[in-house]
Amino acid sequence: MNQKAMYKLSYGLFVITANRDGKDNGCITNTVVQVTSEPNRISVTLNKGNYTHDMIADAGVFTVSVISENAKFDLFKRFGFQSGRDVDKFADYAFCKRADNGTMIVTEGTNAFLSGKVIQSIDLGTHTMFVADVTDMEVLSDVPSATYVYYQENIKPKPQAVGKTEDGQTIWRCRICGYEYVGEELPEDFICPVCKHPASDFEKIAPAVETEAEKR
Amino acid sequence: MNQKAMYKLSYGLFVITANRDGKDNGCITNTVVQVTSEPNRISVTLNKGNYTHDMIADAGVFTVSVISENAKFDLFKRFGFQSGRDVDKFADYAFCKRADNGTMIVTEGTNAFLSGKVIQSIDLGTHTMFVADVTDMEVLSDVPSATYVYYQENIKPKPQAVGKTEDGQTIWRCRICGYEYVGEELPEDFICPVCKHPASDFEKIAPAVETEAEKR
Repeated sequence: MNQKAMYKLSYGLFVITANRDGKDNGCITNTVVQVTSEPNRISVTLNKGNYTHDMIADAGVFTVSVISENAKFDLFKRFGFQSGRDVDKFADYAFCKRADNGTMIVTEGTNAFLSGKVIQSIDLGTHTMFVADVTDMEVLSDVPSATYVYYQENIKPKPQAVGKTEDGQTIWRCRICGYEYVGEELPEDFICPVCKHPASDFEKIAPAVETEAEKR
Repeated sequence: MNQKAMYKLSYGLFVITANRDGKDNGCITNTVVQVTSEPNRISVTLNKGNYTHDMIADAGVFTVSVISENAKFDLFKRFGFQSGRDVDKFADYAFCKRADNGTMIVTEGTNAFLSGKVIQSIDLGTHTMFVADVTDMEVLSDVPSATYVYYQENIKPKPQAVGKTEDGQTIWRCRICGYEYVGEELPEDFICPVCKHPASDFEKIAPAVETEAEKR
């Protein structure tokens, strides 16, 4: 079994937003797909550890904003690299408007939105899959949708070739979101605090290689 | 509501294969996604009208071959444009080998395979979603995975600018698979016999436009 076969599956990227008791929040996901066309239904699968997961489970509605190739890395940092439990991700954020179902639409670095009303929640262990009727949707731009591969190759900053911290400790980086863990060994049961992926999705950053120029 | 927002969702493309009572079959789908990583599980959603759907429902195992950018249109014709009820799709087909779970792996125009054992079947109306443990997987090549957009732009033959048949009838083409229906009006309840998509996924082929060269 070669685990890398999993990386051959293609995905889009999305901001999924929720509103509970007047509070807005959203997170990045790659799990939005159409499941039936008659009626028009989509599914989104979220880790139970995500704050947005709990908000959607309670409120029963959400909006998916489809991320396009012109999205900036800042969009991913804002919605993907921090938790709505700690910060208000929509504070001082101008690139959004409110959908009819009360949740936010992200309007920059996106090319469409789909609002959903949950009709079924499926327990998948670590995750819940929400199946939803599409209640509203519009195209926002003609820029192509960003795939997960496009994000990795063109939006995410290239990792610097630093293998150790300044004081000599090993750095492990989450291949999914870029979160860095410092320590000689990564605990086997470690879970990325940002994207909730397991230790198997972390890689030791390759030690810096001296270039010919640096040797001189 | 602009239905075209649905086309902004990104998908990969896959051959999903099954074996029941010694008979092999497979179809093209865009619905394979990872749903959890601990344990490693994928889902695939198939129309209940598909023969492969019934075979997987009975046999409980399948294999997904991930289609790559070097796939030929013939692969889509073989597995997507005909039904296993009518033909043996693996007859005289050399580009395959048998997986440990007894189903076929397609080895040309693909870059990986994942074998699945169904642990849950979710009724979604017109479709069934099969959630499966990944029991085996390997990488087959380094060619990038074909997205649905890549298929539309680079693999599917460009439609010829013919708006009418030779005897003057209107042609409707399925945007999903390319199936053509001939008739002045497409019935509202029409279902594509190949990919099972509804009438709303058909478009009237634009009438041929005379070029300047042709006018002379």
